[in-house]
Amino acid sequence: MLLESGLVLMADTRTNAGIDNFSTFKKLHVLAETPDRQVYAATAGNLSLSQSAIALAKQRFQAAADSGDPNALGTMFDVARLTGDAVAEVGETTGAALAREHIDHTLEVLVAGRIGNGPQKLYLVYTIGNFIECTEEVPFLQIGETKYGRPILDRALSYSTPLAEAVKIGFLSFDSTMESNLGVAHPIDVLVLPSSRNKQPLKRRIEEDDPYFAGITRQWAKILNDGVTALPSPPWLDRSTI
Amino acid sequence: MLLESGLVLMADTRTNAGIDNFSTFKKLHVLAETPDRQVYAATAGNLSLSQSAIALAKQRFQAAADSGDPNALGTMFDVARLTGDAVAEVGETTGAALAREHIDHTLEVLVAGRIGNGPQKLYLVYTIGNFIECTEEVPFLQIGETKYGRPILDRALSYSTPLAEAVKIGFLSFDSTMESNLGVAHPIDVLVLPSSRNKQPLKRRIEEDDPYFAGITRQWAKILNDGVTALPSPPWLDRSTI
Repeated sequence: MLLESGLVLMADTRTNAGIDNFSTFKKLHVLAETPDRQVYAATAGNLSLSQSAIALAKQRFQAAADSGDPNALGTMFDVARLTGDAVAEVGETTGAALAREHIDHTLEVLVAGRIGNGPQKLYLVYTIGNFIECTEEVPFLQIGETKYGRPILDRALSYSTPLAEAVKIGFLSFDSTMESNLGVAHPIDVLVLPSSRNKQPLKRRIEEDDPYFAGITRQWAKILNDGVTALPSPPWLDRSTI
Repeated sequence: MLLESGLVLMADTRTNAGIDNFSTFKKLHVLAETPDRQVYAATAGNLSLSQSAIALAKQRFQAAADSGDPNALGTMFDVARLTGDAVAEVGETTGAALAREHIDHTLEVLVAGRIGNGPQKLYLVYTIGNFIECTEEVPFLQIGETKYGRPILDRALSYSTPLAEAVKIGFLSFDSTMESNLGVAHPIDVLVLPSSRNKQPLKRRIEEDDPYFAGITRQWAKILNDGVTALPSPPWLDRSTI
């Protein structure tokens, strides 16, 4: 989420190679975290491609930082291009080999953060390395299992939503997704980067028994069910017709 | 939906051949409607395949009825097999030709109804003609754009839900889908077949300006937004941290 109040990144940690082979892997990564550069990434798709692309991007990010060149990676657009290049590179090598074996070779990466005095930015990098930028009109981008959790984002989230409210909405979106797809599961990693420069980035891992998460999802289920009950029934379906 | 109280079928009417070519076509069909046989179908996927498969199924249904053979199509399972055969037949001919041209050749059909004194049944026929039957545990089956509208069904619908409530929940599911996918749109066709045998099947087309539909979707948006606001914010995200 790219909001006036800041950036929010969320990722679950479940990966699977078939329904009988689940694991927990981090999908939310720190590319750089210095006073001048706070850059984060989230991944979806093939795990080996994800890990290789993130490792490659991190190495190059570090090399650019170590070069001392003040123009190296001077903007978030540069960071998105570097990430896109890393994604394209693993796609052309390992990805192509996976495709030949008819194994899923998709890889999507969200890259977000801030460089120097520049604005906060959020990009979505696709499997072939091209990317789009998040804008105010739809202030979020999704990767992976996007559909079950989208309606609540469409309805409740706007560019002016405060950070705490946005995190809450993100949790409700994950809750809907986890209700319908076993391939998405706790723990959920959260990163909040306030747009105010004198606030620190906040990272938190939400376990399955997290009391806050469990509390709002229980309340949300009740709100939805009470809400459905409170709505009137179709006037053309009364007791005499059914 | 296959409920203790009866059957509910719902389908939108939008088809498209690309984002620049939308049309309105009926996707909810009557296969038979006599005192002894009430059978309905809904389709998703390639329109030419859908229409051909439904036409073929209808012809064969009629031929079986005309044969005077009391064992012809004596159960809903027989009807599901007949429909599966029709789907397989158009798939092996037109579907295979579409596949060679890399054009979408999926076709999914929901078949539901009642034969004679048999129970109400609901089946989902897949592209190659195989099918599954709906059971009480998850009392609904979906085809087409299934994901956006699924969470509210998972949460609110159960086998014991009354018919009027079920129709309302179905409308909320379509509302979430239509918020997120332009390829799903009014009018929505609804069919209700009460399990009580002395009640008539009820058919209704819901246009975009239908006052009941418009009213509950407006109220539902308010319930969701008020609900989000009423939930507490994360305790670890207070004013001092953000």
